[in-house]
Amino acid sequence: MPETLIKVDLSQPAPSNEKVHNRWHPDIPMACWVNPGDDFVLETYDWTGGFIQNNDSADDVRDVDLTTVHYLSGPVGVKGAEPGDLLVVDLLDIGAKDESQWGFNGFFSQKNGGGFLTDHFPSAQKSIWDFQGMFTTSRHIPGVRYAGLIHPGLIGTLPDPKMLETWNAREQALIDTNPDGNLANPPFMATAHMGQLKGEARDKAAASGARTVPPREHGGNCDIKDLSRGSKIFFPVYVDGAGLSVGDLHFSQGDGEITFCGAIEMAGWVHMKVSIIKGGMAKYGIKNPIFKPSPIVPTYNDYVIFEGISVDESGKQYYLDVNVAYKQACLNAIEYLKKFGYSGAQAYSILGTAPVQGHISGVVDVPNACATLWLPTQIFDFDINPSAAGPVKYLDGSIDMPISYDK
Amino acid sequence: MPETLIKVDLSQPAPSNEKVHNRWHPDIPMACWVNPGDDFVLETYDWTGGFIQNNDSADDVRDVDLTTVHYLSGPVGVKGAEPGDLLVVDLLDIGAKDESQWGFNGFFSQKNGGGFLTDHFPSAQKSIWDFQGMFTTSRHIPGVRYAGLIHPGLIGTLPDPKMLETWNAREQALIDTNPDGNLANPPFMATAHMGQLKGEARDKAAASGARTVPPREHGGNCDIKDLSRGSKIFFPVYVDGAGLSVGDLHFSQGDGEITFCGAIEMAGWVHMKVSIIKGGMAKYGIKNPIFKPSPIVPTYNDYVIFEGISVDESGKQYYLDVNVAYKQACLNAIEYLKKFGYSGAQAYSILGTAPVQGHISGVVDVPNACATLWLPTQIFDFDINPSAAGPVKYLDGSIDMPISYDK
Amino acid sequence: MPETLIKVDLSQPAPSNEKVHNRWHPDIPMACWVNPGDDFVLETYDWTGGFIQNNDSADDVRDVDLTTVHYLSGPVGVKGAEPGDLLVVDLLDIGAKDESQWGFNGFFSQKNGGGFLTDHFPSAQKSIWDFQGMFTTSRHIPGVRYAGLIHPGLIGTLPDPKMLETWNAREQALIDTNPDGNLANPPFMATAHMGQLKGEARDKAAASGARTVPPREHGGNCDIKDLSRGSKIFFPVYVDGAGLSVGDLHFSQGDGEITFCGAIEMAGWVHMKVSIIKGGMAKYGIKNPIFKPSPIVPTYNDYVIFEGISVDESGKQYYLDVNVAYKQACLNAIEYLKKFGYSGAQAYSILGTAPVQGHISGVVDVPNACATLWLPTQIFDFDINPSAAGPVKYLDGSIDMPISYDK
Amino acid sequence: MPETLIKVDLSQPAPSNEKVHNRWHPDIPMACWVNPGDDFVLETYDWTGGFIQNNDSADDVRDVDLTTVHYLSGPVGVKGAEPGDLLVVDLLDIGAKDESQWGFNGFFSQKNGGGFLTDHFPSAQKSIWDFQGMFTTSRHIPGVRYAGLIHPGLIGTLPDPKMLETWNAREQALIDTNPDGNLANPPFMATAHMGQLKGEARDKAAASGARTVPPREHGGNCDIKDLSRGSKIFFPVYVDGAGLSVGDLHFSQGDGEITFCGAIEMAGWVHMKVSIIKGGMAKYGIKNPIFKPSPIVPTYNDYVIFEGISVDESGKQYYLDVNVAYKQACLNAIEYLKKFGYSGAQAYSILGTAPVQGHISGVVDVPNACATLWLPTQIFDFDINPSAAGPVKYLDGSIDMPISYDK
Repeated sequence: MPETLIKVDLSQPAPSNEKVHNRWHPDIPMACWVNPGDDFVLETYDWTGGFIQNNDSADDVRDVDLTTVHYLSGPVGVKGAEPGDLLVVDLLDIGAKDESQWGFNGFFSQKNGGGFLTDHFPSAQKSIWDFQGMFTTSRHIPGVRYAGLIHPGLIGTLPDPKMLETWNAREQALIDTNPDGNLANPPFMATAHMGQLKGEARDKAAASGARTVPPREHGGNCDIKDLSRGSKIFFPVYVDGAGLSVGDLHFSQGDGEITFCGAIEMAGWVHMKVSIIKGGMAKYGIKNPIFKPSPIVPTYNDYVIFEGISVDESGKQYYLDVNVAYKQACLNAIEYLKKFGYSGAQAYSILGTAPVQGHISGVVDVPNACATLWLPTQIFDFDINPSAAGPVKYLDGSIDMPISYDK
Repeated sequence: MPETLIKVDLSQPAPSNEKVHNRWHPDIPMACWVNPGDDFVLETYDWTGGFIQNNDSADDVRDVDLTTVHYLSGPVGVKGAEPGDLLVVDLLDIGAKDESQWGFNGFFSQKNGGGFLTDHFPSAQKSIWDFQGMFTTSRHIPGVRYAGLIHPGLIGTLPDPKMLETWNAREQALIDTNPDGNLANPPFMATAHMGQLKGEARDKAAASGARTVPPREHGGNCDIKDLSRGSKIFFPVYVDGAGLSVGDLHFSQGDGEITFCGAIEMAGWVHMKVSIIKGGMAKYGIKNPIFKPSPIVPTYNDYVIFEGISVDESGKQYYLDVNVAYKQACLNAIEYLKKFGYSGAQAYSILGTAPVQGHISGVVDVPNACATLWLPTQIFDFDINPSAAGPVKYLDGSIDMPISYDK
Repeated sequence: MPETLIKVDLSQPAPSNEKVHNRWHPDIPMACWVNPGDDFVLETYDWTGGFIQNNDSADDVRDVDLTTVHYLSGPVGVKGAEPGDLLVVDLLDIGAKDESQWGFNGFFSQKNGGGFLTDHFPSAQKSIWDFQGMFTTSRHIPGVRYAGLIHPGLIGTLPDPKMLETWNAREQALIDTNPDGNLANPPFMATAHMGQLKGEARDKAAASGARTVPPREHGGNCDIKDLSRGSKIFFPVYVDGAGLSVGDLHFSQGDGEITFCGAIEMAGWVHMKVSIIKGGMAKYGIKNPIFKPSPIVPTYNDYVIFEGISVDESGKQYYLDVNVAYKQACLNAIEYLKKFGYSGAQAYSILGTAPVQGHISGVVDVPNACATLWLPTQIFDFDINPSAAGPVKYLDGSIDMPISYDK
Repeated sequence: MPETLIKVDLSQPAPSNEKVHNRWHPDIPMACWVNPGDDFVLETYDWTGGFIQNNDSADDVRDVDLTTVHYLSGPVGVKGAEPGDLLVVDLLDIGAKDESQWGFNGFFSQKNGGGFLTDHFPSAQKSIWDFQGMFTTSRHIPGVRYAGLIHPGLIGTLPDPKMLETWNAREQALIDTNPDGNLANPPFMATAHMGQLKGEARDKAAASGARTVPPREHGGNCDIKDLSRGSKIFFPVYVDGAGLSVGDLHFSQGDGEITFCGAIEMAGWVHMKVSIIKGGMAKYGIKNPIFKPSPIVPTYNDYVIFEGISVDESGKQYYLDVNVAYKQACLNAIEYLKKFGYSGAQAYSILGTAPVQGHISGVVDVPNACATLWLPTQIFDFDINPSAAGPVKYLDGSIDMPISYDK
């Protein structure tokens, strides 16, 4: 087996682990170094560092402090990597920790970040997913079973000071347009965990360390379900050694990660291999990461596909707005699934966790964008195809997802 | 062979054909009637009714009058279909007309509708695509060859008066927010072609007939590449007989139809079969059409995937805006393809016409949406994968797409 | 549209068409000539030249004279092709003739060639399949609908005299081991149709012209379902001009073409393009054709898979015999399908015509070969998966395939 | 994590493990019992019990005693399973043991079992394959890298006495036709390992215990590459408790397992779940196991496909013999790969280990069977497609597989 360069102990608080961090900053010391061509394993906490528990209450989803996330393992320094290079990462395999064969999906309270459909699902809810080898099922959502499309929600390289400054400046400019709008998350020192950085150096870096929530030029929290085990990613390099960090592992997720909390979130490990393309950023004109998909992914290929256009639930017309269109496609799918006996929350959780595809189908036909949501039929224990006979209620409503109202 | 219920003569002007129309209105008479279970063929003009020619000038793309589009074949009345039903349409096969084995792709001038990347490609340009059986190539864009993912860009049912009023009202409300912004297209009587409707009745309907550009609740101009031959679509029914119309056939298209003019546009025919699910809208909670994909589609499954986030080219930060993110993914792909010798225009045209996937990858990680553009590698005559050796220029720049500047 | 170089009139007897032949011989004159890079269309008879009719009697299947088959369109001469080259054929598209949108599948009487399971199905039977665009259904076999995997059962190049002599010699040697065993078909002059060859020249060639039944080094009657439209084939060239002939079109077929008569047999047309790799046979070490599969094929990917081993129905043990093993897998699948209400004949016809896969799964584990038959579940109107509840009879037995007993 | 019911210690001899056996006999005691619905893990030796080493000599392949194989973990008793039921086995996941992340492929000497192409490769040879997560490469065969299609070569249920007697009788009858021909392997007491059975009981059972080499009605050594992790298998039950045993794990294999020793052989573990369909054998007409493929398998879909017909290398004509045809397809593929610089042995090993498909393409066209071998192009580091330019030698021949000649 390859060497495990970073270990995490799920019984210990994530901030106690010096090879873990929760902000992006060039001053965070490399947790370890590797050579190009090396393959190695990094263990990771779940993105909340273990705050969400395997139980039947959504209180933890309601109460989680989002300034503490995401706990990332790294940074890993790659010898010889220099600014302008591409860091090539082969995700050779990814799994849950042996002692933690489960994951969670949740909806945040509208007061605590919400989610894509928070107007319809304003309260904290949670579903727990058990893993059985390559598959998952949930005791809170009967009738579905997926093969995992296992991937890191978050993986990226360290920014250099200039890139960091750019991020902070542009995000602050957005915040300034509506300071109470939660439009973005500025640096926040109190809960920053800067890896091995201590004392004044830690405080200084923590004061400007970029939050881990958004994806950015370096990768980061892309939540791309197709960065799955077996894929190959090409990252921009901004600092000597590149500084690769990873976390926020997902057992499965639908396009959009619409429930925000989010996919099927888990603690686990990533087996990866690194190499370098010297000067690759200029050679290939790279600004954001590019990647090659995995040759081993779930092969579900039968779908019911839902259309949505950029007119919202109230009938208001938007101009070519894909977000509105995709929201409508999601709501249409939820209404459809309710006809088979699911609660709206269960349907929403399925869309957030199953290998659902979300396509930008038409984006030029003024004024309506058109988005499609592809729901795989083969993940259901029963037939969800439309027919002349009409839908058969498979579920009796006796099982639902836990909910915790705001205090 | 099934009966051809609507024929089009490409040598005659589209408005002379009474079984064709270019507006949506409940008063448009059915062009013909069929029974549930029937299969039949409808021929169609290309969306511009033949305005764009197979030549090496983009003048026609620059000069086209967009108030005249789209020329649709229909409406077909389906006996027994009533409001609240679902009209089930099997697209049994679709093809180009024998005498017209070619199609076009273009960018409109920024003054005439533009396209998704009009700021970067502000002038009219055109590429011509020849069909060789199930494949297409372009004399203006060497090095690519696709299997066709043939589909109608536009297919839908007639609105009832209330639905029509809703459309016109909500779109006018948007227009009113910026009357000079070309945010939407209001009814326009002069160039309206209302099928068999004549005289006063025609004028009255033409005055309020909805334009065909946007997709709406009835389907319409969805430009969903996956509504391809072999797929099965479930349409809401608003009027007795449903009133199914189709046109704007595409030989191939990428997600988003980003070049607006648009896919590989062609004249052709659609062989389809219709049936009805009584009361299906309520049974399945249907607001917009749903569909099942075709079992025969191009199987390209190797991709280079480009990420984009909602920060625009100038560095401005947007809030969870998928449009901006997808635009960045497209621009990133274009820069990449230029390294292999393509012009920007050629690369843009490839993204608009090839079976490119556009995914809504992350839509909850404030402030950045993340979109991905999936470029199939198997459509290229050469290797476009990134490698340590760097890109090899396959093209010498001697061939490019015709351009016509605004007069 | 490309030029149609060979036309067939289905209302005229196949032997009256001089651009058609039913034997392989180097003296058959080229029916036409093309240049490398040309694309063109050849029309073809069904393999029996129209003997089998679209009706509900199997008399024609019982009575067909197998010395008359297969009627092939060609040979097409390709300028510049020389012995030792590879002839590259792109099957750009294939279809049924407009006026003949149907096909047939049959079992020959055991006295007239039989089929793979002739011991179980000794009498002539027939099923008729109607085409609806890209799909087919049969009035004799309810409950199934396939997307077509359209391909030529037979396509190949002309042998040179030495190759022809080799074929005749080795096949005669086999016949000589059991002259009454129908082990192979020797040349047979009476019904030989040698294209444009007339008089003495015809008689001489007819006396030694190889029968078209078996596949050989030049391709020929390979009955490979995956040589489907969109595929690219590389044929050995033995004579100047190569001499490409094609016929025996199939709308769909399962691996093995186990019913012998055979696939869904049809008259139609092939749109193809030719080019040449000079000296390609030596360059690539080619003895038999190689090919690249089509990028557009049915994507059915859910199967029930049946195993068979080389122990026959009587319990007799064979040594690593894949034929016996595949026969058992087929019989196992037939027994399974009977539980859902199909007759044995219907089940057999499904296995012969649907895009069933037959894999050589294990061929070294003495004494048992293991073969698998992959039955796609998505072609059925009902659920054929095994379940704890047991099979539900979907069919009541009121419909079956016509049968005609030997006279 | 699920419980590991059977553990194997790779540092100890396999025969010392009482939860392992190498013969099939109803008297072998259940190694453990489980309930329907349980999921659990069984560890397994490689099929030779550790005889083949990770080194650069083929001596061990030459010298292995084939009377000792295969070492199977089990039998597992399933409570409530009775003769006539179907035992449903979900292969939830399969992997190599952590401490043994490698596998081997070999050719047996012609004197010791040989392989499918033993006439061409008569001496013992070996290649070692290293695993890197979901992928494998070999230091003995450069230029290829596969994603694993991990599966048990051998899995099956215990026979009852009558079934066992049938096996032994029919195989002995075959042996008797040519006692020196190695046509099958009769019971052999000396090296029989009968699990917990000891003393006289062991000797009695060992005297008639069926060898594990062939696949039979109960499953057994099917070497079906598609029984991969994620698949669901339905086994006949012959004895109370069913008695499920598994071993001979493969990281990857081509159809046919043509090299006999065989796939990429490894020690590992199987995570599985069991359930029962009462009376399922009669309900579904089951004689041999049936199965559903995994939804997670390598998605390689671009191939070069080689044809073979039933005429052997010497030109001898066989009658519809699929074995001969597949052998020719294999030899054709080997000749092709040699043009790119591989040795014949390397090419043979690739065909035996990569996810190569072997199809029974035509089996009724007297006298030639037609088989096809599908070689995935995406496993190669270079382009193996045929082109007008001819093949480029990628390999210089400096690396080859170890060989050990018979002593």
